[in-house]
Amino acid sequence: MSHRENPRPGGRSARVQAAVHQSVRDILATMDRTDVTIPLIAQRANVTPSTIYRRWGDLQELLADVAAARLRPESEPPRIGSAREDLESWIEQYADEMASGVGRQMLRDVLSSTDGTSVEKCRCYMQQQLAVLIARAEKSGERFPDLEELMDHVISPIIYRILFDCPIGEDYVRELIAKVMQKFKG
Amino acid sequence: MSHRENPRPGGRSARVQAAVHQSVRDILATMDRTDVTIPLIAQRANVTPSTIYRRWGDLQELLADVAAARLRPESEPPRIGSAREDLESWIEQYADEMASGVGRQMLRDVLSSTDGTSVEKCRCYMQQQLAVLIARAEKSGERFPDLEELMDHVISPIIYRILFDCPIGEDYVRELIAKVMQKFKG
Repeated sequence: MSHRENPRPGGRSARVQAAVHQSVRDILATMDRTDVTIPLIAQRANVTPSTIYRRWGDLQELLADVAAARLRPESEPPRIGSAREDLESWIEQYADEMASGVGRQMLRDVLSSTDGTSVEKCRCYMQQQLAVLIARAEKSGERFPDLEELMDHVISPIIYRILFDCPIGEDYVRELIAKVMQKFKG
Repeated sequence: MSHRENPRPGGRSARVQAAVHQSVRDILATMDRTDVTIPLIAQRANVTPSTIYRRWGDLQELLADVAAARLRPESEPPRIGSAREDLESWIEQYADEMASGVGRQMLRDVLSSTDGTSVEKCRCYMQQQLAVLIARAEKSGERFPDLEELMDHVISPIIYRILFDCPIGEDYVRELIAKVMQKFKG
């Protein structure tokens, strides 16, 4: 995997990463992204452009790295009730966030990278959250889909619709979850 | 939608489009894409750079337009046997093509566009092919999934796996189709 994975916290490498990520976020908040350049980012982060080129390669990879970091969840899916209810509530929120302008742009940035690190991070964050819900269901003895069923039949259709500009209706997420749960009935 | 949709065949606009698309394909076949620029494309297509900027806006949108055009199917899904067999064979081939290096790059190019034209084209091509299969099933009286079920539970998981670098096993496509067919059993 990439050398930019897990720099030692507090070390020089981690400080550079934090400064460059912050600079990208600040610049993206105020500037049109077609005007963003590595020298501009470097100047604001108080590092040399060559530090950025050496570490990230090019602008596309840097934007993908920043987007992947922003997709890192801050906490586990909240507890609402049953594992199914937790799943419904968490996926609904996830779909809302990803379908927003910022969410779409983050997805696009992650997917435009040709190095596989950012897409892998993004997928792993998602899978870790689902694993938490699966573990809750196991603990409470609820029947629950496995990780592959959730990825293929709940997450994938949502992400496809967001990427390919298809509408996501109000009940769409619950219907997907109901469908994947159905096989446990009767 | 965009002004670059359906130029009159044989007209000047169609000739410019064909020359610029051909130039992009030629250049991408021989050059690293990070070195590709609009002036280079314009020179090879024998048009001015401003013609390209006026029509496509920027390099990203041009690459997306070329990728969408390459994703346009040349013919209907071949007839193998039942509509289900036609579907299996066509989707297997589609998944192979999309999972190849060229296929991934085309998907990435289409998705990196911020104007919705290219993703819409790409999705419509897919839906037209599926509609042909659905019509065949209707004609022969075969039970068959509808367009939404095929998009959500066959196409979406395949595209997600390709975009997020997950393995697609040898029997994966047939298993997805078997699952979406299951509801008609018993």
